[in-house]
Amino acid sequence: MKTRLTELCGLQIPIMLGGMYLVGRAELAAAVSEAGGLGTITSKTLGTPEALREEIQKIKALTKKPFAVNLNLFPSTTPTPNQAFIEVMAEEGVPIAETSGRSPEDILPLLKEAGIKVIHKVPGIRYAKTAQRLGVDAVTVVGQETGGHPGMSDVGTLVLVRRAVQELEIPVIAGGGFADGYGLAAALALGADGILMGTRFMATKEAHVHPHLQAFLQRATENDTLVLQRSIGYPSRVGKNAFAEDILKREEEGATLAELLPLLSGKRSLAVYFEGDMEAGIFSLGQSVGLFADIPSVKELMERIVREAEEALKRLQTIFGGDGP
Amino acid sequence: MKTRLTELCGLQIPIMLGGMYLVGRAELAAAVSEAGGLGTITSKTLGTPEALREEIQKIKALTKKPFAVNLNLFPSTTPTPNQAFIEVMAEEGVPIAETSGRSPEDILPLLKEAGIKVIHKVPGIRYAKTAQRLGVDAVTVVGQETGGHPGMSDVGTLVLVRRAVQELEIPVIAGGGFADGYGLAAALALGADGILMGTRFMATKEAHVHPHLQAFLQRATENDTLVLQRSIGYPSRVGKNAFAEDILKREEEGATLAELLPLLSGKRSLAVYFEGDMEAGIFSLGQSVGLFADIPSVKELMERIVREAEEALKRLQTIFGGDGP
Repeated sequence: MKTRLTELCGLQIPIMLGGMYLVGRAELAAAVSEAGGLGTITSKTLGTPEALREEIQKIKALTKKPFAVNLNLFPSTTPTPNQAFIEVMAEEGVPIAETSGRSPEDILPLLKEAGIKVIHKVPGIRYAKTAQRLGVDAVTVVGQETGGHPGMSDVGTLVLVRRAVQELEIPVIAGGGFADGYGLAAALALGADGILMGTRFMATKEAHVHPHLQAFLQRATENDTLVLQRSIGYPSRVGKNAFAEDILKREEEGATLAELLPLLSGKRSLAVYFEGDMEAGIFSLGQSVGLFADIPSVKELMERIVREAEEALKRLQTIFGGDGP
Repeated sequence: MKTRLTELCGLQIPIMLGGMYLVGRAELAAAVSEAGGLGTITSKTLGTPEALREEIQKIKALTKKPFAVNLNLFPSTTPTPNQAFIEVMAEEGVPIAETSGRSPEDILPLLKEAGIKVIHKVPGIRYAKTAQRLGVDAVTVVGQETGGHPGMSDVGTLVLVRRAVQELEIPVIAGGGFADGYGLAAALALGADGILMGTRFMATKEAHVHPHLQAFLQRATENDTLVLQRSIGYPSRVGKNAFAEDILKREEEGATLAELLPLLSGKRSLAVYFEGDMEAGIFSLGQSVGLFADIPSVKELMERIVREAEEALKRLQTIFGGDGP
């Protein structure tokens, strides 16, 4: 398959692993890259420049293919050493960065100087246009379906992707609600150059999350997510558990940021992701969780997605080729 | 073009005009049917069986092609004479009914007995499966992007359509966020048999709404809608104006149903739709309003959509046919 994204990044399949806090480690990212897509290591998970360097060296030992490192620019109670991360990325020859959270304006010169291509992820057209003007190489737009941070505007992926294609000249990656090849074909039909998947890759053999969480992913439906943190202007789509429903109730009752912050702590989430205590905290999850029910290897999944996308193409050919009544 | 929807209803293009209160009149519906799609008259707008009969006779004079009548099963403060409407539809030989609002269980035998095909519109998979079990001929699923009534679950069209195709055996029509041929191709790639459009058809020469409203449709972006009535369990996506924003604020402040009802009255909306007073009341609007900026004739629009869908197909063929790097 050939799109502006595969050309830009040197891929065989226009699918990118979205940056996932706690989940975006070298083994999963390497598997996605080895299968022809773009794997992404999430720097925030590593915490220190030294740990990021080790993780980058680990992925380079696992694959010779291109990969990306996610830089988290969201506001945070714990400062993220992004400048130091970028120095490590430059030294280690990381080819691509995924940025998100706010405008990449201040770090873009550093990345460009290091020859690192930049894919900036946004939840709205306004931010996408700014990123294009600043000189990023591609933009990912995520609709309200996305796990993680869908933005305040609640625009669906279907509309947002088409709007991005209308407004932008640089390649567009579509995120939010994708888990299979039918979705990939749909995104390409809308004019996108590829898709971003996070939740679906969490449900693969190479994702190092607890079996309890993967069992949840297998049985969850499209109704098993909810959006927290809208009340503090920083929406986050997470898996539905009693813990998250309690936070939502507190938000509706007017809880303050100071009251909410301890509940939203990433430390609580560690127990969900790695100890399988499904009520210990919140965990990011997109609506695409309703679209699948198995835990394949990344390679099996990617091959299946290509087959499904080809099937969707054949379906369109039949519909357009058929005689009208 | 040939899908199970075009076969079921005798269409040339798998596009249906969604039932639109106040807007779904004979002239617009006839134009959609004449252009090869499925036009829909909205019975609730007519109010009485006599007026519905006149409207049906009017559309039959305008087109010999198939059309539908929408039956609104939503709870209402003013009772809707649906039984009498169905008697008129049977007598006038209406071929297709679009139902929505609650389960069509009680009226389905009447419709079936009259030989009327039934397309039931739902905002969730659970309702779609019930409708299939009851024996409807096709289901329309609408995602959270839709104008009118998106349901409480906020699932995006992209996910909901694919879920419907996974779960159902009868034809699936995709609604919510569609305005062009790229969207049509995307829906067909997901496995749908056609699309539903409402907002886009409101912005055509044949829609008998005020020029002020059509000017709003032309300049509105994907961020110019909001969802009211969530607090009363009956969400409704409407155009963003000061009137709607005030209602949303009252809802957030805990307004009661009795306080809200006078503001939500369809009578207030009449002034928006037909007198062009854009602040007089609420008006239904989907997120697809951001995707277009012109007021074509229905025929021009439908021909353009087919061209765009063919262009999307060619794009997919190129992407799959191209050599990987």
